[in-house]
Amino acid sequence: MTLDPVLARIDDDLPAALDRLTALLRIPSISTDPAHDVDVTRAADWLVDDLASIGVAAERHDTTGHPMVYGTVGATGPRLLFYGHYDVQPVDPIELWDHDPFAPAIAETPQGRVIRGRGASDDKGQLMTFVEACRAWTAVHGALPARITFLFEGEEESGSPSLVPYLRGHRDALDADIALICDTGLFEDRVPAIITRLRGLLGEEVTIQAASRDLHSGSYGGAARNPNEVLARILANLRDDAGRITIPGFYDDVAEPDADTLAQWAGLGFDAGAFLGAVGLSVPAGEADRSPLEAIWARPTAEINGMWGGYAGAGFKTVLPAQAAAKISFRLVPGQDPLKLRAAFRDWVRGQLPPDCTAEFADHGASPASQMATGRPEFAAARAALSDEWGVEAAFAGAGGSIPIAGYFKDILGLDAMLVGFAKDDDRIHSPNEKYDVASFHKGIRSWARILAALT
Amino acid sequence: MTLDPVLARIDDDLPAALDRLTALLRIPSISTDPAHDVDVTRAADWLVDDLASIGVAAERHDTTGHPMVYGTVGATGPRLLFYGHYDVQPVDPIELWDHDPFAPAIAETPQGRVIRGRGASDDKGQLMTFVEACRAWTAVHGALPARITFLFEGEEESGSPSLVPYLRGHRDALDADIALICDTGLFEDRVPAIITRLRGLLGEEVTIQAASRDLHSGSYGGAARNPNEVLARILANLRDDAGRITIPGFYDDVAEPDADTLAQWAGLGFDAGAFLGAVGLSVPAGEADRSPLEAIWARPTAEINGMWGGYAGAGFKTVLPAQAAAKISFRLVPGQDPLKLRAAFRDWVRGQLPPDCTAEFADHGASPASQMATGRPEFAAARAALSDEWGVEAAFAGAGGSIPIAGYFKDILGLDAMLVGFAKDDDRIHSPNEKYDVASFHKGIRSWARILAALT
Repeated sequence: MTLDPVLARIDDDLPAALDRLTALLRIPSISTDPAHDVDVTRAADWLVDDLASIGVAAERHDTTGHPMVYGTVGATGPRLLFYGHYDVQPVDPIELWDHDPFAPAIAETPQGRVIRGRGASDDKGQLMTFVEACRAWTAVHGALPARITFLFEGEEESGSPSLVPYLRGHRDALDADIALICDTGLFEDRVPAIITRLRGLLGEEVTIQAASRDLHSGSYGGAARNPNEVLARILANLRDDAGRITIPGFYDDVAEPDADTLAQWAGLGFDAGAFLGAVGLSVPAGEADRSPLEAIWARPTAEINGMWGGYAGAGFKTVLPAQAAAKISFRLVPGQDPLKLRAAFRDWVRGQLPPDCTAEFADHGASPASQMATGRPEFAAARAALSDEWGVEAAFAGAGGSIPIAGYFKDILGLDAMLVGFAKDDDRIHSPNEKYDVASFHKGIRSWARILAALT
Repeated sequence: MTLDPVLARIDDDLPAALDRLTALLRIPSISTDPAHDVDVTRAADWLVDDLASIGVAAERHDTTGHPMVYGTVGATGPRLLFYGHYDVQPVDPIELWDHDPFAPAIAETPQGRVIRGRGASDDKGQLMTFVEACRAWTAVHGALPARITFLFEGEEESGSPSLVPYLRGHRDALDADIALICDTGLFEDRVPAIITRLRGLLGEEVTIQAASRDLHSGSYGGAARNPNEVLARILANLRDDAGRITIPGFYDDVAEPDADTLAQWAGLGFDAGAFLGAVGLSVPAGEADRSPLEAIWARPTAEINGMWGGYAGAGFKTVLPAQAAAKISFRLVPGQDPLKLRAAFRDWVRGQLPPDCTAEFADHGASPASQMATGRPEFAAARAALSDEWGVEAAFAGAGGSIPIAGYFKDILGLDAMLVGFAKDDDRIHSPNEKYDVASFHKGIRSWARILAALT
């Protein structure tokens, strides 16, 4: 009785909801690039206005970095804290986009309708599924069935430097029974999923310096240390031939999933061939004795996200550079301590430096893995609601990504978090030509309406 | 009688000669960058005009690339072909320059007066030493003592694509008794040198492709192939722990210097500590069983001149790139065939590709090493002339760089070449803050006047 008219309203309002999402996607809120600071703030203001339009007491909370959007609504029912982020990844390599990343448009594709643009899936489209569910519910019933606090972050793609201080400073204002986070995906593009675990993330940047200046390879080649070679040799040692990370102690504290979890994962029937095939690959590249699903959900990684040294322009330059550098990220699993591993990584690099070389390190964030409180009744209720909407039993799934907010909610606010999202593997998040399926958006909104009904 | 007034004239004219060099250095003739095509042509025209001003019948010869400057002068005496290049290296990283690379200026330094600017040493300043010697000789005696052909190239820093066709098309016009090339340095900054051997140069670029697009390291990290890692592992294998290049057959055709040559080199008293110390290094990084002088003059190298893949901007991006790439150069010694080694390198890379990866290669030039005809009488005459000017016996020295023109002169024109130059190791050629010592310029002009006298 309460739900059906809300779902009908959502269906009717879909074109307007897509227009609103399009307006938000037009704002290039790239949080890592200072040139876009004003755009990040503009996106925050857009959200404050949009929340206010559905009766939320919303305001922009400025920080030393990008602002938080904060809002409250509702007088009765359970207390829910909803989190999403409105900042987006950089767009480079821009030349690989088929269209302007910030001129969003609806496109028909062989796989259905999509909305294209940077942030469509990560995370503006997802964030708006919850907002649109609240909008429809409010329109139909005049009020929401829960006491909801909104928290939208503008620094998720740049390491969230303001988040912890903000949470510490707003413990009372953010108090709730449970947190809801919409920044994850469907399981294999077709099964709704509640995320039960998230990997942590340690980001490191290392710069190797050899000579005091760039050298001519004719004058010095063969006699002077080349930091490109030094860096390549260190990076080549990151993993052994069986794919295991070689940093001493790296696996010491890894908690293996229990037998029940492994059995449940096996029951999901994950199609590793399709997963890799979708991006042009056929052979798993991880630890030789682990399945791709285990590799992504239950195993830590070491990946070189960027490396550079010397001349990369057109033509050729016979230079021995003075420096070479790399950005390396480690995805972490439950049990691993990011700060302990940072120290181990740096020691491991220093231990491989040849004479005359130094290494400098920069810190790009450190957050531990999270395990969710799946025994709470909200998880069963939401699972049933999702199953109803999608016509297939929702999965309790792992996730390879890192959403440190879940850990912060637990550690700082004492809140358990439930992560539900509707992104697909082919959404190209963080890549050129990002998109979000209109079906993800539409059924996502309907899913949140059902979850609201189930939790209240 | 003929020489002394020429030397006096050179001394008197030094300020004007520096003004002329400054004017040439102001032209940003970067041959690898199409944005500077017009500047390269402008530099050629400047040289045509300057040669004409001293009575040379000079003209610009356009090619499919950058022009050659060609000129002839003199009616009697030996036939000399003088070669230099008027194009310069790119200036990046521009932020490391203390001043505008193309706003040249004379500066006083603790080591003496220098002229600063891109190309000051490589090769505009060197090229002008010979032109100024001819100018002074002509001013004093009304005519030159030799029949001289000038050939100035505008593509030396971009692989000389037009050079071989040009030489083939102008065999008669370029005929001479011997070629003189000014693009090399002093020995250890203090001893004049005639170069007896040059290393060859093979330039390669390899691009490794794995997935069909950039991937999110949270979604795919630990399961998908990362081309940064693939490239790092290949590059790390270029040399073994003893510094030897591991490409099969790489050393097969290396001709070792004979005992006389090694004994002569030992007699030069090369100071390896000072050589490395000048650029902040202390330990040779080449083959463990070779001295730095052997490493530079007599051993082939494999150096990574550039490598890149993934995100290199500010902040962090958790991307697994689709591609990673490197530019690699090999300095070659007498006996080695560049094309055979190119094939061996590419086979060696392909043999290391893991599943799902491809390698594409680009060709950045291939030229063999050269050995000079030091037994010709011109070498002894020039050596004596240089020794007189510098007050120390001129060295018969090797050189680590690659000046393929010497090989082309021999192969195409049948000409032996004699390389004499006045650059110093600290001239920062190919690097930010390039300079040429005013003493190199001044004594270089005087040296050519003495050589002209000695050869005629």
